[in-house]
Amino acid sequence: MKTYAQMSQEERRAEYAALQKEFQGWKDRGLSLNMARGKPGKAQLDLVSDIFSLMQKPEDYVSDGIDVRNYGEMSGLPAAKRLFAEILDCQPEQVFVGGNASLQLMFDTISKAYTHGLLHSPRPWRLEETVRWLCPAPGYDRHFKITEFFGFELITIPMTETGPDMDMVEKHAKDPTVKGIWCVPKYSNPDGVIYSEDTIRRFANLNAAAPDFTIMWDNAYCIHEFEGDYVPFPDILSLCAEAGHPDMVFEFASTSKVTLPGAGVSCFACSEANMAHMSNLLTPQVISFDKVNQQRHVLYLQNKAHTLELMKKHAAIMGPKFRTVLDALDREIAPLNIASWKRPKGGYFVSFNAMPGTARRTWELCREAGVTMTGAGATFPYGKDPQDSNIRLAPSLPPVEELKQAISIFCLCLKMSALEKLGV
Amino acid sequence: MKTYAQMSQEERRAEYAALQKEFQGWKDRGLSLNMARGKPGKAQLDLVSDIFSLMQKPEDYVSDGIDVRNYGEMSGLPAAKRLFAEILDCQPEQVFVGGNASLQLMFDTISKAYTHGLLHSPRPWRLEETVRWLCPAPGYDRHFKITEFFGFELITIPMTETGPDMDMVEKHAKDPTVKGIWCVPKYSNPDGVIYSEDTIRRFANLNAAAPDFTIMWDNAYCIHEFEGDYVPFPDILSLCAEAGHPDMVFEFASTSKVTLPGAGVSCFACSEANMAHMSNLLTPQVISFDKVNQQRHVLYLQNKAHTLELMKKHAAIMGPKFRTVLDALDREIAPLNIASWKRPKGGYFVSFNAMPGTARRTWELCREAGVTMTGAGATFPYGKDPQDSNIRLAPSLPPVEELKQAISIFCLCLKMSALEKLGV
Repeated sequence: MKTYAQMSQEERRAEYAALQKEFQGWKDRGLSLNMARGKPGKAQLDLVSDIFSLMQKPEDYVSDGIDVRNYGEMSGLPAAKRLFAEILDCQPEQVFVGGNASLQLMFDTISKAYTHGLLHSPRPWRLEETVRWLCPAPGYDRHFKITEFFGFELITIPMTETGPDMDMVEKHAKDPTVKGIWCVPKYSNPDGVIYSEDTIRRFANLNAAAPDFTIMWDNAYCIHEFEGDYVPFPDILSLCAEAGHPDMVFEFASTSKVTLPGAGVSCFACSEANMAHMSNLLTPQVISFDKVNQQRHVLYLQNKAHTLELMKKHAAIMGPKFRTVLDALDREIAPLNIASWKRPKGGYFVSFNAMPGTARRTWELCREAGVTMTGAGATFPYGKDPQDSNIRLAPSLPPVEELKQAISIFCLCLKMSALEKLGV
Repeated sequence: MKTYAQMSQEERRAEYAALQKEFQGWKDRGLSLNMARGKPGKAQLDLVSDIFSLMQKPEDYVSDGIDVRNYGEMSGLPAAKRLFAEILDCQPEQVFVGGNASLQLMFDTISKAYTHGLLHSPRPWRLEETVRWLCPAPGYDRHFKITEFFGFELITIPMTETGPDMDMVEKHAKDPTVKGIWCVPKYSNPDGVIYSEDTIRRFANLNAAAPDFTIMWDNAYCIHEFEGDYVPFPDILSLCAEAGHPDMVFEFASTSKVTLPGAGVSCFACSEANMAHMSNLLTPQVISFDKVNQQRHVLYLQNKAHTLELMKKHAAIMGPKFRTVLDALDREIAPLNIASWKRPKGGYFVSFNAMPGTARRTWELCREAGVTMTGAGATFPYGKDPQDSNIRLAPSLPPVEELKQAISIFCLCLKMSALEKLGV
């Protein structure tokens, strides 16, 4: 079989005409399929909905002597701190347990840095002439948006197989206007890369010029394997402390993809000095987060081992969806030599690199045929992929039967846009 | 019986010596009682804990076709909007339903004004040379703290029997650096005043010099009568709209004292233009708030009439606590002519005015005897009561038997500090 580049223009024209016919067929079916966001599917929600049967008995309302139903305990229930500390392999007193979304805790951290400054800030970041921020890309659009919202200048750091390009990170960190970096260290969004030991060690030892340089360590997929066993992961807090930079990192996690998206529990973890500083800054804003939901999660998840058992059940739902996507790509796209993609073992995405200059067109064609994809470019700062190549596939939401349709349409649209690019 | 002022110094000395003995008796008992915060008592929490028995059936997870367990619907469930709109007498599309705390929504509103500006702001408030803010006092310390946190200059507006002194509000609103005002319009914190129709009308018709002048209308106690029937209250949104100022007000409410403090549901209500503006500003911060808890509340509270029935049950618990406090004050303090206090029919506080110059000393004595009170001065901007007189009593938390002890100790400490002031 010839690749598209090997075909003559005539052959490509014939191929394109056939694809157009198929495309019209899909359009006529008026489908509405969604692979845009890392939303768990209904089977995953059903899997955990027995969480609602908890909190029935009066003794459940009390945790470490605290009535979880009343105001108080701004930094969260001690039992919830212990649970997250065990999962993240840090200390309970380093954990702040928040509301239903780690995104809000990340936003708050950056927002406080902007309005009031972090622990080692010479001044609030709003008073800096320029704040620059490192964005490993492809990366998570919502991360980039937060730092864009506050007017920071976003610097793209290429992702490698072992994490962000650390030579570039170390180079840029010498610039005192560079205040931090976004990281998804395990099953990175969207590449699914696990940062290597060397990468993590270089992060912990980073000698940044800005005294308040901050690693935003979003450990969103810390226990989210869908293939193979749980992969242990180093505790960045203690590594930073050992390297003499205890206050350089804020770690984030949540149960959004363990229990319920939007109704789970989130946390951040940091040094005790950072904790004291952030608690001061959060006091005018927060009396307490929802401790009833925290307690519900403590009762439901119990401990790390029990939580990992639950994640195996999620894996049993997620695994087949990823295999559906990868099988279709291997079958339909691999022989054509028009794209490459990752083969993650955890997280929520497949990072796909289409022929440069065709990602946006592929997205448009998909939309026309009834498949919603993450916007092309979304994985880069300012939503602009200089190569117009990366596409984030999110296979988690549709049931396998729908996913098969969606990925067929995606392959079709990829082929069409590649042929258009090559000339038909 | 003589008042303290009518007594001779010798008589006062004798009285003081007797009180000191009593004081020592209380100290020896080593009590730990709390009247500091508007925290519901355990009986109130137990009253509503059947809310946890909801969300058991699969059909409960779906509201208006939305799976409440997944991401999405940033501005809240339509059904939750309808519920709050009915309670506040506004339109569902004017309601944004948030997380567990209206304080966070208020903080966010001011924070967004500061970092990015409100709908009619010529520039973000952080770029204004001076931002002034009106604080009716006695008022709510957490309100004042938010505006203090962002460096605004707080201006005290005296509270009257009908609400804030509107002559002063109107005068200050002519200053373009005055950007807004905090209001608790029904059962104000702590005075328990219901703003009069005239006050509300003057607010709606306020011609503020600042184009982005904002009334922060914290309707925290909108359905919180503990004596007598529900008192209907005008919708400030439509009054402002009729007066040509649709975007001048943000209203806030929550179920913190309807269902669970810290595990309830909050909302803000505003014009549709404000809603569009705020939604834009919240998009980088929020994917969605906890819709499971929103749905739980929709199922539990059902509608306004059903919610008011629940509030009658809270009133049956709260009423006796307020009567315990007021009876003790009438019996112990009224004859001495050393103080005055309000007699609210709703809300969570009794606003107490001790003899000027004695509030802080009374607070210290209470603490020594094992009773925690709201800090003296807390009801004024910067925590400074120029008269050192106002004390906020919060009778909701202790059971009646403990409350009797707490208020006895309070009366005792009041007497001692009054005698100290008069000279012993």
